[in-house]
Amino acid sequence: MPGLLITFEGGEGAGKTTQIARIGDALESQGLSVLRTREPGGTPSAEALRTLVKSPPSALSPMAEALVFAAARADHVANVIKPALDKGFVVLCDRFIDSTRAYQSAGGGLAMDDILTLEHLSCGDLKPDLTIIFDQPIEDGLARAHQRGPQDSFEARDLAYHQRLRQAFLDIAAQEPDRCQVIDASLEVAAVSEHILAGLRPALQTLTPEGQA
Amino acid sequence: MPGLLITFEGGEGAGKTTQIARIGDALESQGLSVLRTREPGGTPSAEALRTLVKSPPSALSPMAEALVFAAARADHVANVIKPALDKGFVVLCDRFIDSTRAYQSAGGGLAMDDILTLEHLSCGDLKPDLTIIFDQPIEDGLARAHQRGPQDSFEARDLAYHQRLRQAFLDIAAQEPDRCQVIDASLEVAAVSEHILAGLRPALQTLTPEGQA
Repeated sequence: MPGLLITFEGGEGAGKTTQIARIGDALESQGLSVLRTREPGGTPSAEALRTLVKSPPSALSPMAEALVFAAARADHVANVIKPALDKGFVVLCDRFIDSTRAYQSAGGGLAMDDILTLEHLSCGDLKPDLTIIFDQPIEDGLARAHQRGPQDSFEARDLAYHQRLRQAFLDIAAQEPDRCQVIDASLEVAAVSEHILAGLRPALQTLTPEGQA
Repeated sequence: MPGLLITFEGGEGAGKTTQIARIGDALESQGLSVLRTREPGGTPSAEALRTLVKSPPSALSPMAEALVFAAARADHVANVIKPALDKGFVVLCDRFIDSTRAYQSAGGGLAMDDILTLEHLSCGDLKPDLTIIFDQPIEDGLARAHQRGPQDSFEARDLAYHQRLRQAFLDIAAQEPDRCQVIDASLEVAAVSEHILAGLRPALQTLTPEGQA
């Protein structure tokens, strides 16, 4: 595919949304076509699934929760991400497969084999070209998430859960160093943007002019 | 598991809901503990997924649709069906795995291998002890479904789709004759109930008194 899929991952309140806005602006100022999107979400039906999974009418079983995320992802990939990559867009996605891997494995109850099976069902052969993993002390992230408003069912889990989550993201980065870059999210906003843009440069150089609309 | 899972399958407007009410009453009058439930649904979250998939905010990709059904099923199996079977209930379920197989294969776009993978993720080793497949000319069923109110996105599909659906259910019955019984749903209501109850008798005899609460 002529475009680039760049995913932004990490725990709660790491500043992913802020950075996606800034990085998107920087890439557009270089003349690139950029799509900013998020998971779960990105289509009206996937956004409805997001609302449901964040405040479920009844507690979902761990597998049911994973299947809802996979459903939202399958719809997002088929109807938004793949069409944009086909047109040569740089797609900046707030959370993707690594959030499922980290949240489900940190939450326990689900085998990694099943998680990878769901990944294949929802994404086929699509993988991110580059993944930025936002890392910071969990207390900082939860405090920042808390400032945004009431806790959702994920933010409300205990500190040990969020600690396992942080470690799960770092483990993914260690397992796939070619795809993943860990960023210190406790730095100043402008410094984080600079680090990310420096990390993107090699991937952006693979974009051919014909690939871009 | 000490209970029995009996599923009711077939196209639209076949009278499944009416028969589940009647069969449930007949079994309760024999002193059995009965749970009547339906798919997609059976838990508050699964009912919310049912609403979403029947009137999606945006057209779902075929895989996303299958994953939503699987999510609802996983939740229903874990939180309702398995606990009831553990307590020795006879569970009467309006639609289950065969609806997914038939609707998704009749609708095309999804490989049977993927459907069976989702079945395993949502149900584990659980299989219906007995499946009643309601069969009738598709025009009759659609007319009956139409009397109930406005069409949903499944009822609204064309006649060729519903014909493929009918055939898909008959194919399942032919492939698994020990589990599946085909019932002529165009008979009188009382006659359909009698046929079903006669078919249930051998399975009910396997219920031990200890199995029943």
